[in-house]
Amino acid sequence: MRDVLPDEVELRDGAMACILDVYRRYGFRRVETPALESLRLLTGGQGGENEKLIFKVLKRGDRLAASAEEGDGAELADLGLRFDLTVPLARYYAHNHAKLPQPLKAIQIGPVWRAERPQRGRFRQFTQCDIDILGVLSEVAEIELILATAEALLALGLGDLTLRINDRRLLVAIAEHCGFASDRFESVFISLDKLDKIGLSGVRVELEAVGHPTDAVAKLVGILGEPGLAKGDLDDVLGALPVDSGGAPARALKAVMRAVRGASEGRFGIQFDPTLVRGMSYYTGQIFEISHKDYPSSIAGGGRYDRMIGKLLGREVPACGFSIGFERIIAILQERAGVTDRVRRVALLFDPAQDDLAAVMTAAGRLREEGHCVSLEVRGKRLRKQLDDLAAHGFTDYVLFGTSEIHGLASGAGERATSG
Amino acid sequence: MRDVLPDEVELRDGAMACILDVYRRYGFRRVETPALESLRLLTGGQGGENEKLIFKVLKRGDRLAASAEEGDGAELADLGLRFDLTVPLARYYAHNHAKLPQPLKAIQIGPVWRAERPQRGRFRQFTQCDIDILGVLSEVAEIELILATAEALLALGLGDLTLRINDRRLLVAIAEHCGFASDRFESVFISLDKLDKIGLSGVRVELEAVGHPTDAVAKLVGILGEPGLAKGDLDDVLGALPVDSGGAPARALKAVMRAVRGASEGRFGIQFDPTLVRGMSYYTGQIFEISHKDYPSSIAGGGRYDRMIGKLLGREVPACGFSIGFERIIAILQERAGVTDRVRRVALLFDPAQDDLAAVMTAAGRLREEGHCVSLEVRGKRLRKQLDDLAAHGFTDYVLFGTSEIHGLASGAGERATSG
Repeated sequence: MRDVLPDEVELRDGAMACILDVYRRYGFRRVETPALESLRLLTGGQGGENEKLIFKVLKRGDRLAASAEEGDGAELADLGLRFDLTVPLARYYAHNHAKLPQPLKAIQIGPVWRAERPQRGRFRQFTQCDIDILGVLSEVAEIELILATAEALLALGLGDLTLRINDRRLLVAIAEHCGFASDRFESVFISLDKLDKIGLSGVRVELEAVGHPTDAVAKLVGILGEPGLAKGDLDDVLGALPVDSGGAPARALKAVMRAVRGASEGRFGIQFDPTLVRGMSYYTGQIFEISHKDYPSSIAGGGRYDRMIGKLLGREVPACGFSIGFERIIAILQERAGVTDRVRRVALLFDPAQDDLAAVMTAAGRLREEGHCVSLEVRGKRLRKQLDDLAAHGFTDYVLFGTSEIHGLASGAGERATSG
Repeated sequence: MRDVLPDEVELRDGAMACILDVYRRYGFRRVETPALESLRLLTGGQGGENEKLIFKVLKRGDRLAASAEEGDGAELADLGLRFDLTVPLARYYAHNHAKLPQPLKAIQIGPVWRAERPQRGRFRQFTQCDIDILGVLSEVAEIELILATAEALLALGLGDLTLRINDRRLLVAIAEHCGFASDRFESVFISLDKLDKIGLSGVRVELEAVGHPTDAVAKLVGILGEPGLAKGDLDDVLGALPVDSGGAPARALKAVMRAVRGASEGRFGIQFDPTLVRGMSYYTGQIFEISHKDYPSSIAGGGRYDRMIGKLLGREVPACGFSIGFERIIAILQERAGVTDRVRRVALLFDPAQDDLAAVMTAAGRLREEGHCVSLEVRGKRLRKQLDDLAAHGFTDYVLFGTSEIHGLASGAGERATSG
């Protein structure tokens, strides 16, 4: 966990406002869930590996005493900090659906917590930024999520985006065709997900090491080695796979790719990738990721998860979401200079021992009425150093109380002001 | 803890943006600290009663196992959720001061957590909204904090505001004069703080019940009963008190009241209240509260706390802050209709089984380019009911795909649209 300094907060706030503006134009509305959820919800099996990384909150008062007395077996904790925004959204919908629009098009931006080992660039509190459509079975949900997310990233100035898309049902068809055991598909997909990193031979070694049948592994490796897979045209790739190229998943893929291509007008790439897996086992249909040329891993990801809400509500509600890796976006934006407009901030320098405070306030008020952001600053003994410090901390201008001139502060402005 | 529905999130976001805008114009900048802090910090004695209400987070992995083995006495938790934004800000400043502007004018808006017993209108996660000036000894800090906070509340449409102001040093002088034991002043102030609720006789009973000397109690009650106290004019009230009316606290009060009166131009009231206490014992100088005629308790409060940072940093840094009770503000705004402008939101109704999705996307894109917030909505079987639902959930207009006309949606718009 870490502190955020003013400059970075401004970058983050600006990026967030930019994303929110696009999402609102696409008809999404922000919802909020609490940071703490019951451990029963958080450990219900939807969170995958993240369920091992929960910050658990001790029971309070009598309930803690009672658990402690019961000894080792009793649970000392009953609440946990959310590790993502998807599981809480499903709970939110199950709890509040009678009061919510049908369908619900939700924006969520907020912190999540994971008790990971500290490592460079990864924090135990970080921000996620999701949109979800709950209650729409049609692939129009996928299309809107993809367009809104890509549009938000483009609005941030991130060009060179590529969307990769696949469908979990195609992955299942391939695994079935190869003859893997149906209760071990998730393990096949986890290895397949590493194809980029460990290559085809690595996938083969890993699948055999965890005991999948040799002939199934060989069949899968054969399919993945097909030259047609690399061609990229949807019909060609589908033709090279052991899937029904006229079935519902294939038709939905075609519809989504066609609509997204039409609406995107070439501003980002879109590509069918039959090896795309996405980590979470809750996905039931299309899955997608957006990558950016300056960043090694994907910067946004999502998919359809039609069965999660049913487990909480007792009736199934179709659902689909897309999540922007907010911290990754910030890392990219920080590399760039001048992405956001610099706010004009004026320092009004005065001497509290000599100047009349009421008059200083009046002068500040007048500058604010003219539209400036004005901070009163006690004039120090060394004006030149003070002006340099002000420039270093985001001030763009200064005014000496008693004068009406606004002086610009740039690098080196301090020297000019005192030598002139 | 609770879920926030889209309408309320919009009200909250709008209020937050309005407050932030004013604070930025006063030269404050947002900073962010993590939700979790070390329990050592949170239980360091600065949080008063709130330290009893901390949500504590279990240690993880080996460290938890080690603590559990050590048995009952060992601490199972090492982190806690912050119960306010002031203690974390002091830690933030102590930790990052070399990288921060001097002085630091900080805005903090974010959730805090207290494990209180659930009761009506109080939640265990709620939002605080603070501004603080760290590093300014002059009362210009108090003046800016007061003006910025009052301005923010006025910008929200909250008129009829009254600022009450006092100085902890005057309270100490009175307690000394009455002859209370110097190590029990805080207990005197806690009873005095209830004067509004329990009256002068109640204060007397309470002070005697906790064992303060009868003659000291009688002296205090005598002072509080002085008719001069009710008159309100600063010099008269100071004259009726056993304090040095020419000393530093009295002079600072006069300077602040004069500058605030001048700058406020009568838009809010300001009043010296020698019985104002504020709960926290960390205050060292002026303290203030703002009340609004529609709300029984204060809606903002703050004061000077010059010794808190010194305990963490090893050298004293003067500090002063003002906190808006954000949840109280929202409660007042919710009582009012039409405080925020309603966003125009257009539903584009289409039939996924018949309409060409790429063409639907193009139509939506065109409307968005015209500046509308547009949500694609699958057309239901009963248009009239669907339009009513859309109006109930914040939509202001709808368009039927294939037509270009934008229809308004108000209460009853559904009937008009289908009968016309």
